[in-house]
Amino acid sequence: MTDEKKTVVLAYSGGLDTSCILVWLQEQGYDVVAYMADVGQDEDFEEAREKAIKLGAKKVFIEDLKEEFVKDFIFPAVKANAIYEDRYLMGTDFLFLFNIVIMISTAVARPCIARRQVQIALQESAEYLSHGATGKGNDQVRFEMTYYALYPEVKVITPWRLPEFYNRFKGRTDLFEYAEKKGIPLPVTPKKPWSMDANLMHISYEAGILENPKTVAPDDIYCMTSDPKSSPNEPDKLVLEFKEGVPVMVHNLNDGTVHDKPLDIYTYLNKVGGRHGVGRIDIVENRYVGMKSRAHLDVETFTMDREMRKIKQMLSGKFAEQVYYGYWYSPEADYVRFCLDKSQENVEGKVTLNLFKGNVYIISRESKASLYNEELVSMDTITGYNPQDAAGFIRINSLRLREHSRLRKALEKGK
Amino acid sequence: MTDEKKTVVLAYSGGLDTSCILVWLQEQGYDVVAYMADVGQDEDFEEAREKAIKLGAKKVFIEDLKEEFVKDFIFPAVKANAIYEDRYLMGTDFLFLFNIVIMISTAVARPCIARRQVQIALQESAEYLSHGATGKGNDQVRFEMTYYALYPEVKVITPWRLPEFYNRFKGRTDLFEYAEKKGIPLPVTPKKPWSMDANLMHISYEAGILENPKTVAPDDIYCMTSDPKSSPNEPDKLVLEFKEGVPVMVHNLNDGTVHDKPLDIYTYLNKVGGRHGVGRIDIVENRYVGMKSRAHLDVETFTMDREMRKIKQMLSGKFAEQVYYGYWYSPEADYVRFCLDKSQENVEGKVTLNLFKGNVYIISRESKASLYNEELVSMDTITGYNPQDAAGFIRINSLRLREHSRLRKALEKGK
Amino acid sequence: MTDEKKTVVLAYSGGLDTSCILVWLQEQGYDVVAYMADVGQDEDFEEAREKAIKLGAKKVFIEDLKEEFVKDFIFPAVKANAIYEDRYLMGTDFLFLFNIVIMISTAVARPCIARRQVQIALQESAEYLSHGATGKGNDQVRFEMTYYALYPEVKVITPWRLPEFYNRFKGRTDLFEYAEKKGIPLPVTPKKPWSMDANLMHISYEAGILENPKTVAPDDIYCMTSDPKSSPNEPDKLVLEFKEGVPVMVHNLNDGTVHDKPLDIYTYLNKVGGRHGVGRIDIVENRYVGMKSRAHLDVETFTMDREMRKIKQMLSGKFAEQVYYGYWYSPEADYVRFCLDKSQENVEGKVTLNLFKGNVYIISRESKASLYNEELVSMDTITGYNPQDAAGFIRINSLRLREHSRLRKALEKGK
Amino acid sequence: MTDEKKTVVLAYSGGLDTSCILVWLQEQGYDVVAYMADVGQDEDFEEAREKAIKLGAKKVFIEDLKEEFVKDFIFPAVKANAIYEDRYLMGTDFLFLFNIVIMISTAVARPCIARRQVQIALQESAEYLSHGATGKGNDQVRFEMTYYALYPEVKVITPWRLPEFYNRFKGRTDLFEYAEKKGIPLPVTPKKPWSMDANLMHISYEAGILENPKTVAPDDIYCMTSDPKSSPNEPDKLVLEFKEGVPVMVHNLNDGTVHDKPLDIYTYLNKVGGRHGVGRIDIVENRYVGMKSRAHLDVETFTMDREMRKIKQMLSGKFAEQVYYGYWYSPEADYVRFCLDKSQENVEGKVTLNLFKGNVYIISRESKASLYNEELVSMDTITGYNPQDAAGFIRINSLRLREHSRLRKALEKGK
Repeated sequence: MTDEKKTVVLAYSGGLDTSCILVWLQEQGYDVVAYMADVGQDEDFEEAREKAIKLGAKKVFIEDLKEEFVKDFIFPAVKANAIYEDRYLMGTDFLFLFNIVIMISTAVARPCIARRQVQIALQESAEYLSHGATGKGNDQVRFEMTYYALYPEVKVITPWRLPEFYNRFKGRTDLFEYAEKKGIPLPVTPKKPWSMDANLMHISYEAGILENPKTVAPDDIYCMTSDPKSSPNEPDKLVLEFKEGVPVMVHNLNDGTVHDKPLDIYTYLNKVGGRHGVGRIDIVENRYVGMKSRAHLDVETFTMDREMRKIKQMLSGKFAEQVYYGYWYSPEADYVRFCLDKSQENVEGKVTLNLFKGNVYIISRESKASLYNEELVSMDTITGYNPQDAAGFIRINSLRLREHSRLRKALEKGK
Repeated sequence: MTDEKKTVVLAYSGGLDTSCILVWLQEQGYDVVAYMADVGQDEDFEEAREKAIKLGAKKVFIEDLKEEFVKDFIFPAVKANAIYEDRYLMGTDFLFLFNIVIMISTAVARPCIARRQVQIALQESAEYLSHGATGKGNDQVRFEMTYYALYPEVKVITPWRLPEFYNRFKGRTDLFEYAEKKGIPLPVTPKKPWSMDANLMHISYEAGILENPKTVAPDDIYCMTSDPKSSPNEPDKLVLEFKEGVPVMVHNLNDGTVHDKPLDIYTYLNKVGGRHGVGRIDIVENRYVGMKSRAHLDVETFTMDREMRKIKQMLSGKFAEQVYYGYWYSPEADYVRFCLDKSQENVEGKVTLNLFKGNVYIISRESKASLYNEELVSMDTITGYNPQDAAGFIRINSLRLREHSRLRKALEKGK
Repeated sequence: MTDEKKTVVLAYSGGLDTSCILVWLQEQGYDVVAYMADVGQDEDFEEAREKAIKLGAKKVFIEDLKEEFVKDFIFPAVKANAIYEDRYLMGTDFLFLFNIVIMISTAVARPCIARRQVQIALQESAEYLSHGATGKGNDQVRFEMTYYALYPEVKVITPWRLPEFYNRFKGRTDLFEYAEKKGIPLPVTPKKPWSMDANLMHISYEAGILENPKTVAPDDIYCMTSDPKSSPNEPDKLVLEFKEGVPVMVHNLNDGTVHDKPLDIYTYLNKVGGRHGVGRIDIVENRYVGMKSRAHLDVETFTMDREMRKIKQMLSGKFAEQVYYGYWYSPEADYVRFCLDKSQENVEGKVTLNLFKGNVYIISRESKASLYNEELVSMDTITGYNPQDAAGFIRINSLRLREHSRLRKALEKGK
Repeated sequence: MTDEKKTVVLAYSGGLDTSCILVWLQEQGYDVVAYMADVGQDEDFEEAREKAIKLGAKKVFIEDLKEEFVKDFIFPAVKANAIYEDRYLMGTDFLFLFNIVIMISTAVARPCIARRQVQIALQESAEYLSHGATGKGNDQVRFEMTYYALYPEVKVITPWRLPEFYNRFKGRTDLFEYAEKKGIPLPVTPKKPWSMDANLMHISYEAGILENPKTVAPDDIYCMTSDPKSSPNEPDKLVLEFKEGVPVMVHNLNDGTVHDKPLDIYTYLNKVGGRHGVGRIDIVENRYVGMKSRAHLDVETFTMDREMRKIKQMLSGKFAEQVYYGYWYSPEADYVRFCLDKSQENVEGKVTLNLFKGNVYIISRESKASLYNEELVSMDTITGYNPQDAAGFIRINSLRLREHSRLRKALEKGK
């Protein structure tokens, strides 16, 4: 190591924690490159940029990743129905034993954010990467698994896991004191007693008072979706069109709005879904999942062979696990995504949805495949199906049960 | 065979089809025992009894199976979350290629109904069983698999699969003519262009106009749940308590109603859920599934170890398949139910729900296990968790990814 | 239907059964095209051709399918390790309750044979297909599933399931009488008390005296592999090379023999394996499975990421099931083969085997991937692995167990 | 902490490494309790005891765990066929990237050994546990997962992961020097270039020169099984009897030897199997697995329903994983063992085996279930099976394939 300073790329949020880390890393002798990813959260990025510069960041990167987030990360998750599966994964987690809702929506954003951070590090010849995630959650895992997979030689600095850091900053008061001393602007509003994660897919809340499962979520937590009590009394009727398993068009039949670019579709669904209170799950908010997943599920069911779909579901379950545990960039996730893509080749069609009072009602669907199927149905009487066949089918399938029943009786008598 | 008449036990519904079958079987030389199961559907059983006697039934059995339906069939399905899983099984089915919604709720009732039918056959020394299910659906399979499993030597008469029957009754007109000739009372209301299945768990509609996936369900299909548009503007708040994985108490916090018997709990949840429009799925109605399944899922998540739960989920998936395909009475389903029961030993707790505008919102939960967990959380700081451990955890887990990344690069260079 | 005769393509073996069927079909008014597939069984095809013509076949097709059998059917099975998995599927089967060994090797040949039969039918404008498989086995299923998948409108004639046929030919005597009357040559050797299935992959025996599980297989059943008692006392040492998951070269280090064409490799492995008594499973013979499967397994383990392999194994299990139950030509099997192929892209390397006294000993292996790995290992000390990381890994993984242990104690105290 | 010395229970082997650790721990200020487990390895325990005492051990425990190893650990593994499954788990492992054969047989012994170590620690009021496993293998994980699960508050000392230890003992020379200085007896024979793990189930070798996959195993590695080249030229014929899925009797038909106690059965099978060279896997030795697993598999196949068995296999796969990764004592493994036990209730019967030249040939089997089955077969003709049923079965099963085929053609035309 020469006398040149070592460079670290820090995932910076503009908040108190990462501002303190930005300064603290400089104290430790690093040049700090601040990096912010825009994945759709509500944030004043320019204000954050100025703040980072003022606090000594050597460079600041504000990266708009919304487009690639939709295309490279949300789309595969929609294809897999990974979000739907997520409900099974929910629950007590190894690090966050009492976290109530851990959303795959959070998990999906992490490799997207970390990938660009690695790209910046390589471009800036930085040997170090840093983030402000705590030492107790899954996010540290997801960030760092991506770091290591894409940049195997990297060194990772995680202040919240370093005794010299976490022993110095034991509580919020310590951060405030440090901020005052170092000229870090203090947050103007008191901290909410929970933490929040937001991106194009969702907003979720966790920790703090929500860790007590008996706690009823306070009213003001619902800042992004309308309360169904006060949401519109007339539904919006949308048509959502899919090709190769991903949404390609949304059409609001009420007012004629049409969008056909991935990001526009997502942004619009967020807006209109939020207006109707769609996507509140349990005591926390999770905005936009419902519509796309249910519509996709619906088209898939109509266009994919039943047995092929069972295999695809098995792979989807694996994919959800991989994403959840931080293995987006891994040989196994590469492989599963490849196989899932294949399954979506013919998943296309239109689904008409009513959004109303927090619900998504699928009211009709249409697809090339199902159109043809109808014709085939009418041919059915001619060539395909003989009711008597069913008797043979049932008798053969029950043969094993009948033998089992007889054998059990024989064994009982023999006793 | 002597000159004694052969006896057949017919699953009788009181409707036109099975009335015609009841008469037709006598024409074929059988003594017919009519059997009706009350599994919670809305029916005038006494009227049906009189009709059956008038039409020549040797005996009529009207059996109230509601209690055993809840305890022996719905409870295992709730424990398994089989209903929830069902969404995955939904879709194009082997016999009913274009049926939109096939509910496991239907599937669960069949072995219950068929079991009693077998018991009656044995009691009445009847060698024959008969039902009026068509030759195209899954219900014939579920009925007959149970018949054969419990009564391996039985002979099954399924008129809708016999050419001498289905060639004679090609359409509804043929049935009407036959009914008039034989003095079978004609239905007073015109037949709805769909068929219906109802029991304690649900009502569902299928076939007819609903087979066209583009069809929007007509308004009058929603006869059992309120339309969310006109449902109450204030939620009902319920507490649902579980022990060993099944509901043992419901308490409406709005008006103090309490029920603690299985059947009462179910009947009450149907009533209050229906009032709030809970349980409409897609274009058809499926009343009561949501509440119990979601509440059970919630308690389970809080009280069952995560990894144990993954194994339980695997078994649940198998169970849902077995039920769906008619294998309730089979060695494999016996085995899976045994294993699922074990998993539910500690699944107990209370869940508070809001029912509103077709939605179920879980607002808090409580269980012995989670209470203790909270205490343990506070102990956490003392003995359990060292943030630095996470670094080792991540580095070990990423070791494979780093090696893979290096190897791939090495192989690329080597090319 | 005009007065033109209907044409049926019959899968003909040259044996007594299908010879009688050939004549009987003509009696029923069909033109019969006789079709024989050469998939590696030991047979005098020309003699069979003459016999078929003499018995009135309109045309005879003797098709050498060995090459396509290896490439299109055995190769996918080797990639999937489907043969290895088969041991799990073995056992009491729905139709053949007491069949001891049902080989996937049989199952794999069926779609190959049936595919060509369909091609011939289309070419000859035959509306009918026929085979001589009994009404009790799995083979009828595998043949006909392929017929229907590739030729949905086809009509299938299965004499052994037609009462007019099986009631007429109740035993072997009836066949003999019929043969004599119709001038069908009688078999010169008495029928062995078991049936046999042979192809490039294996020979297996079933039914007859072997149905009794207590029966010890007679010595003369081992006609294709040497008895290990009398097999050579010195091993043959072979190198088997794989590319993209399939064998591309075999090299016998003892005598320098080399083969590099798929069919030659298979034929040679059969020969040398048989000489050493390799592949006798249980009481029946199953020649050639062991070597290729074990060698493939070995290379795969060395070249495929562990977690990716778990997913591949899941798919392999599905594939084995699909093949076994007759679904080779199905959307789900197409999908699974596509995914399995992808997994084999880098499965290449050389395995050295000793064949001796019925055993295959893998003595060393080599692959590009493993070569690079060795280099990487030596780099390991520098950058990759810190022993202390393991402590964190273990502590994090045991966190759940420790909490569980404490919670259980707390709950016990609380009782 | 008072001035009282802290006590550590060390898993002691008598070898150089743990002898040095025994002395080193005392240097660090601990009272050391030396603990040796006899799980069937070949060892002079009394010599080891004297050595430990001489080196300053406060107490020495030599525990004969053979009986409980068989009953509590090997039996569940046999029931699960976990050993058979193991072949799938084999391969590049996260820590030991290039270890060729990692045996579940090793894995199964660890929780047995660690459990007693915890019991001794609790009895001796020791707060510390220690072992000599390296920081790179799976064994450290298996030991410590058991420690933490059974003794959540324990503190673990793992010298090979502590910099103060591994930096001091960088190579074998450092250990020799230390041993000389501290009066630790040096090993008389030079260390073999591999490490060995032995217990009742197996002996395996790993690491060292065997890490190179191209290495051919040296002849002298085969110390426990005969080389098939020189093994007896006449087979031994054994009958192995199972009840509830575990061996209860072995009978050698050649010489009349009979054993009926679990440990005696195991010891005898080891002896006679070893004599015939049974159980050499790949380049390393793995003695006793083959016989019991294959015999168990055989009985299971004969006595367990096919579909139930598929579910059992799924659970077995999970169990093998749990054991392999160190989760023997976990809620999920408890659950799986409970379910597996249930599956074995009727797994009973006798299997006759020939052992010859490294192979196990199953030559016949017998069980109550199969006896009855034979009778049932003969009844089959009367009541059970109608060949025509198979046509319906096949036509229904192929319905989906035919529709798929037509739909595909229709879509192709439509393009």
